Amino acid sequence: MKKIMNEPGMIVEEMLEGIVKSYPELVHRVEDSRVIAKNQEQKQVGLISGGGSGHEPAHAGFVGEGMLSAAILGDVFTSPTPDQIHTAIKAADQGEGVLMVVKNYTGDILNFDMAKDLAEMDDIAVEQVVVDDDIAVENSTYTAGKRGVAGTILVHKILGDAARNGASLSELKELGDQVVATIKTIGVALKAATVPEVGKPGFELAEDEIEYGVGIHGEPGYRREKLQPSKELAKELVTKILSDYTEKPKEVGVLVNGMGGTPLMEQFVFINDVLGLLEEAEVSVTFKKVGDLMTSLDMQGLSLTLIDLTATNWQTALTSDVQTISW
Amino acid sequence: MKKIMNEPGMIVEEMLEGIVKSYPELVHRVEDSRVIAKNQEQKQVGLISGGGSGHEPAHAGFVGEGMLSAAILGDVFTSPTPDQIHTAIKAADQGEGVLMVVKNYTGDILNFDMAKDLAEMDDIAVEQVVVDDDIAVENSTYTAGKRGVAGTILVHKILGDAARNGASLSELKELGDQVVATIKTIGVALKAATVPEVGKPGFELAEDEIEYGVGIHGEPGYRREKLQPSKELAKELVTKILSDYTEKPKEVGVLVNGMGGTPLMEQFVFINDVLGLLEEAEVSVTFKKVGDLMTSLDMQGLSLTLIDLTATNWQTALTSDVQTISW
Repeated sequence: MKKIMNEPGMIVEEMLEGIVKSYPELVHRVEDSRVIAKNQEQKQVGLISGGGSGHEPAHAGFVGEGMLSAAILGDVFTSPTPDQIHTAIKAADQGEGVLMVVKNYTGDILNFDMAKDLAEMDDIAVEQVVVDDDIAVENSTYTAGKRGVAGTILVHKILGDAARNGASLSELKELGDQVVATIKTIGVALKAATVPEVGKPGFELAEDEIEYGVGIHGEPGYRREKLQPSKELAKELVTKILSDYTEKPKEVGVLVNGMGGTPLMEQFVFINDVLGLLEEAEVSVTFKKVGDLMTSLDMQGLSLTLIDLTATNWQTALTSDVQTISW
Repeated sequence: MKKIMNEPGMIVEEMLEGIVKSYPELVHRVEDSRVIAKNQEQKQVGLISGGGSGHEPAHAGFVGEGMLSAAILGDVFTSPTPDQIHTAIKAADQGEGVLMVVKNYTGDILNFDMAKDLAEMDDIAVEQVVVDDDIAVENSTYTAGKRGVAGTILVHKILGDAARNGASLSELKELGDQVVATIKTIGVALKAATVPEVGKPGFELAEDEIEYGVGIHGEPGYRREKLQPSKELAKELVTKILSDYTEKPKEVGVLVNGMGGTPLMEQFVFINDVLGLLEEAEVSVTFKKVGDLMTSLDMQGLSLTLIDLTATNWQTALTSDVQTISW
């Protein structure tokens, strides 16, 4: 294992310090916690997210004016504990309640739920939106139902904009559920990630092999085959995602998300193919984003996310200015 | 070689299309060229940069209001041709002249110089600033003198801000030369990049080996040794850079730049160590930036850049808002 780190067991702590020391004008660490919160407090519903570390810039990179109020950093690929989530809720609450954006993994669901109970004992109103955008497989290694992956960042963005514009907790909850229902993602892996404390890749792919549908913790996908040209990868993912919609969207947003070990050059080649296919399919694309947003340590690969924007006004929220490290 | 691409020989063309189709609100392609230019035209000195591709987001990701007017994309690790650079100069010129920011490689110097001659025949005033921030070695594979690497992006940022605030061509040239003189960078590689048309890594490192001072095209560095903890890597680079300044800076900006295959988690661990060492050395840090800005395809590794900000007001320029894909 070749990683730039010190003790594997200290990697999250040291990363967290690195983040808050690098961008003190945007975020700070809530004392004695694994919570990164935005500096600027506004009278609005608090919006929090989090999960295991190893998905950087998610979620700390999306804390700031117009997106998240706070993020909780669990150990690598491990849900944060209820008390840490509770700390984030308290940090985010401005008296208007707090919405939690939770990726659909059994451990996260359990712990965010317990944190909600703790917060309600403090009389903080809490709601949650569960993101399960990964349509590759049902009931994966750590999940009942579908996994939550890169589409989560679009949920942060749309809800973050609504929250700063004064949406109430119940309005945010309703909007969040609507948004989640329109988002679909599939990933493709060229090479597995190595968890620092494990020291070897989570799975093995042959030198000429790829796997469709791998999760962001290396959970199994749905098919292995020989490495394909970008056009073929794009065709597989676009076709599968479009056919998963009950009604074909007239208008979508596209997110191409690098997994951590795949350079931007390849991501831009891939989105070029995706956009070509969507044009052929007569699907209009009114929002695009490319880059490493929800990674899986040093995994090589990427994911494609579509969000159905037909008859919505979410483009405004998706393109509004924010003050974060990484959007 | 595992890369998401189609024909290796088409990778730059397809990436370029991917970039302009993804961010049409910010940039466009100058017709029949390898030039990406910003949409918004202001009456200011034009600022252009470019070089071989494979360093994404450099330079196209830094085109936009407040940074570059245009970027030229050469083939992978290959200087753009004089006629392409000439096209960029014409696109960037608003009647106030054009400043070229050139990384110090023999091919780039030659071709930008020829383009300057071509532009002067069109009566466009052109100046250039040559960036040679890589203090690892003198006279490398493609370079007479020192190489130009990640510090180039800080030059874009400071000059971009000055240009939009009305600096004249001669003022920009003078400022650029001053800025370059204060920037020092060294990289460290864990694994070499693979050029798409070559198909195998540019050099080989053993499974437990790193190389200090490797260039962004895989040029040799100055020492190989066993993989070190982040703290030791930071110590090597900070010590070497600080001791290269004639007078120890009182105040610096820090850029930690990922090489393309190194996730943000590791970059934040590393900057945490760097900031600790600078604090011990009583050097104040008033600007920080972390991320993949000047990559080397899928190379694993990173570089550290310091810019001496003592007695300057460049922090304002470094932190000002811009409208680009990747700053």
